Amino acid sequence: MINGYAAFEARGELKPYSYEPKALADDEVEIAVTHCGIIRSDLHMIDNDWYRSSYPFIPGQEIVGHVTRKGSSVNHLNTGERVALGWQSRSCHKCEQCLSGNENLCEFAEFTCMGRNGGFADKVIADSAFVIRVPDGLASEDAGPLMCSGITVFAPLYLYGVKPGDKVGIVGIGGLGHFAIQFAARMGAEVTAISTSDSKREDAFKLGASHFINSKEDPDFKAYSRHFDQIVTTGSFDMNWEAVMLSLKPRGELWLEGGGSKPLNVMPYTVFHEGRKIAGTLIGPPKMLAEMLDFSAKHGIKSVGEIMPMKDVNKALQRMREDTVRYKIVLVNE
Amino acid sequence: MINGYAAFEARGELKPYSYEPKALADDEVEIAVTHCGIIRSDLHMIDNDWYRSSYPFIPGQEIVGHVTRKGSSVNHLNTGERVALGWQSRSCHKCEQCLSGNENLCEFAEFTCMGRNGGFADKVIADSAFVIRVPDGLASEDAGPLMCSGITVFAPLYLYGVKPGDKVGIVGIGGLGHFAIQFAARMGAEVTAISTSDSKREDAFKLGASHFINSKEDPDFKAYSRHFDQIVTTGSFDMNWEAVMLSLKPRGELWLEGGGSKPLNVMPYTVFHEGRKIAGTLIGPPKMLAEMLDFSAKHGIKSVGEIMPMKDVNKALQRMREDTVRYKIVLVNE
Repeated sequence: MINGYAAFEARGELKPYSYEPKALADDEVEIAVTHCGIIRSDLHMIDNDWYRSSYPFIPGQEIVGHVTRKGSSVNHLNTGERVALGWQSRSCHKCEQCLSGNENLCEFAEFTCMGRNGGFADKVIADSAFVIRVPDGLASEDAGPLMCSGITVFAPLYLYGVKPGDKVGIVGIGGLGHFAIQFAARMGAEVTAISTSDSKREDAFKLGASHFINSKEDPDFKAYSRHFDQIVTTGSFDMNWEAVMLSLKPRGELWLEGGGSKPLNVMPYTVFHEGRKIAGTLIGPPKMLAEMLDFSAKHGIKSVGEIMPMKDVNKALQRMREDTVRYKIVLVNE
Repeated sequence: MINGYAAFEARGELKPYSYEPKALADDEVEIAVTHCGIIRSDLHMIDNDWYRSSYPFIPGQEIVGHVTRKGSSVNHLNTGERVALGWQSRSCHKCEQCLSGNENLCEFAEFTCMGRNGGFADKVIADSAFVIRVPDGLASEDAGPLMCSGITVFAPLYLYGVKPGDKVGIVGIGGLGHFAIQFAARMGAEVTAISTSDSKREDAFKLGASHFINSKEDPDFKAYSRHFDQIVTTGSFDMNWEAVMLSLKPRGELWLEGGGSKPLNVMPYTVFHEGRKIAGTLIGPPKMLAEMLDFSAKHGIKSVGEIMPMKDVNKALQRMREDTVRYKIVLVNE
């Protein structure tokens, strides 16, 4: 029996919930959860914002724990090892995307709390390919949030290929953005934090930013014309995308990891005239997850925020709804 | 004295015009023009559509001829050699873009008939870096149009890295598109021509396309969901961009080489959810121009259309305005 906290209806409180898991498949592992971060997509799933929720289900997708059982074909993990699991918990391993190392874009992907039960529980089960060993030296309360919030912003920096000296802009300084600043700065970039208010200015500099733009006061980034090699957005912002594009150098790239509810109001000319790109991606594949955890251990990437007991999950979710979390809450099974 | 045909006012006919060129700079060459293609941007320049025209000026930017004179620092070209010149006729050779082989994106670029005189003339002068030797086996009437129409669509295919088996969509079958189909097919791609009417269906197949979409009858490309590796647009189309994006595979790329007068009505989600990209570029740098001419000689890329004497330039331009050209007109000095 697996015991956790499930959503039973949109916008409802989570309630204790137990389920009997199916027999462990050959390629699966069972993880005894020690830590699980909370991310805004947990709220989106609880509230059925994406019309993909089926109740009851246990949210939670930033999971760390120990392997308790493994299927007969699992060779790369051992019982007792400390491991992590993120938003994705299975892919088909046969399609063009999977076979080219882009399992995160598999059409047949399964997501950890979509049509299945996630990490606000004592245990969780997943395709072992998506269960990543946590390197020594990386705390479990840091590893959990990296598995979804972290990878979402690590992927665009990694795929763009940020190198020392690059000028990188990070739009939105929250659960994702506070990781993005750390990653980009540790990759050697000169980081500009872009936020709708000055309230996070000091934090942004502490995390590694060298510049700060208040996008309410300076929506057109006028002082940053042709400045950035890459800009990464980290949330649901309805930006002046035309101005954002013009703040990129020729061949600069805007990477969307979020981006609001309105179409991109960019003129085609603004894209091609100076060889710019608009790109994006969804989380990252297992190989990249492992590289991200190694990078994080080496460079001391931290999940900044609070630790709360798993039983206070509703209190934590309410804090997320009120937008008073800076920057992450990690739930711990005691 | 250089003699040509100049625009004296927006939408006016060209009239004979002579000018005394400045002394040849050390890095310049003078070309005796034998051929000059016509491209829609000649009309845009004549009509001052981009507010960048200064009258009088000689249009023409798809130039082939022979080197008649060269400056003291020009070592890579010899007098008498057959050469070609396109839309760009100078860059600074010192900025980040120039020093990384992206001279086409130089902020200080000069364009052949913008603030200077182009190829509807007996001679033209340019920075020798942008004067490209025409390989034996490539006819001058093919080489001319390649220098602007050709490179504009060669660049996105080249930069994307089209490889055998890739599924490539070409939107718009005109002066640019008819080259794009040939290039993509000779690179080994499976090419789908996308046009607003069936009138070019047969031509598209002859040029190398394997499939044809009538975008008026099938604006949503429903049969092509997740089909394309790359789509290249070649003109001023106001497309259903959201549908275009959804016809790309995960990690597929939409390259804009044109794109109409309205913003991209694409939702940010459609970009990042499956790792797609929107990209574009402007012509290509000298190295790519040379590679394109070599590729074209090797693979028999042709400028399909008509040859007319230079003195009939106004007749040719009128045909462009009436949109009755299939697909190129090349003017020849007799």
